[in-house]
Amino acid sequence: MNFPKSVEDLISKFSQLPGIGKKSAERFVFYLLGHKENIGRLAESINDLATKIHQCSICGNIAEDRQCLICRDEKRDPHTVCVVENFRDLYAIEATGQYNGQYHIMMGVISPLEGVGPEKLRLNELVKRVREGKIKEVILATSSGTEGDTTCLYITELLRPLGVKITRLAFGLPVGGDIEHTDQTTLGRALDGRQTL
Amino acid sequence: MNFPKSVEDLISKFSQLPGIGKKSAERFVFYLLGHKENIGRLAESINDLATKIHQCSICGNIAEDRQCLICRDEKRDPHTVCVVENFRDLYAIEATGQYNGQYHIMMGVISPLEGVGPEKLRLNELVKRVREGKIKEVILATSSGTEGDTTCLYITELLRPLGVKITRLAFGLPVGGDIEHTDQTTLGRALDGRQTL
Repeated sequence: MNFPKSVEDLISKFSQLPGIGKKSAERFVFYLLGHKENIGRLAESINDLATKIHQCSICGNIAEDRQCLICRDEKRDPHTVCVVENFRDLYAIEATGQYNGQYHIMMGVISPLEGVGPEKLRLNELVKRVREGKIKEVILATSSGTEGDTTCLYITELLRPLGVKITRLAFGLPVGGDIEHTDQTTLGRALDGRQTL
Repeated sequence: MNFPKSVEDLISKFSQLPGIGKKSAERFVFYLLGHKENIGRLAESINDLATKIHQCSICGNIAEDRQCLICRDEKRDPHTVCVVENFRDLYAIEATGQYNGQYHIMMGVISPLEGVGPEKLRLNELVKRVREGKIKEVILATSSGTEGDTTCLYITELLRPLGVKITRLAFGLPVGGDIEHTDQTTLGRALDGRQTL
């Protein structure tokens, strides 16, 4: 197609966004060309992301100030901290609307294959927060799988001497899923974790 | 959700792109936060669109130079010009790979309801191009419907005195469509335009 170079460039940049193919990227560029008044503002907002967003000095979440909106929210429970891999997992948990405690973002999981040892995660910061004495429960919210399991085990060993309660998210049947089509590992964990009624 | 303001801003800007809801916009922002090295380049490419893209002085297509890549392409047939409403329609026709002539973008169609009269379209420019004498055929590629029909009629009257051949895109069954499910207007036009085998 005979697009001008700057159009081609932007199509290829938009195509890098998750779930966006060449066709959708073309539609974005065509939309912008038809709404030139929006172009400057969009570019500015994108630049703002690079300049204004930092890491919260307490939990590691995205923040515009030194501390993120969650850490600064006095209505949230300061006694519970939920340990997550990244800020995307944090916002997935926030979206449930069922958690009102603090967070701690590790910035990864222990992964020997990818050369990520515990020293690369924000675990010293976690120990420091727990040592301060306010935190009563640490919820480990890592994914299932070897890396998540290893990370949980490591953190448990790390925090056990500090006498804090350590829990992990439950594994079991996904809501809406049926037993027949659930994979055997999940079903096994649902059995293991069965609850008394 | 407790997103920082600049994240909220960008989510709402991305949501304005065609086919993009809040959820996809969030994924775009999360992707960019995870690939900060891409942010500056994306913002720059978007800004380039506003600064580098102009209108081709001949056909009205998007161009980085005074003339667009199609008008400057000497391998294209200078004797045929296809009249379209906007550059999106131009690229839809280019995508067929079946047309090798020139284009002329009207920048709209005649639409009394929206206050668009023929004087607002690039029709004087079209007449001027035809008067120059090189063009042998003008293909009218407007959509079906009252506005497209009116515009075709107007241009036909305008160009008839100049003795150029005027054609319009064929209407009929869409390829892959079956007769049973084709609307009656389309089927009527397919009958009207039936071809001798």
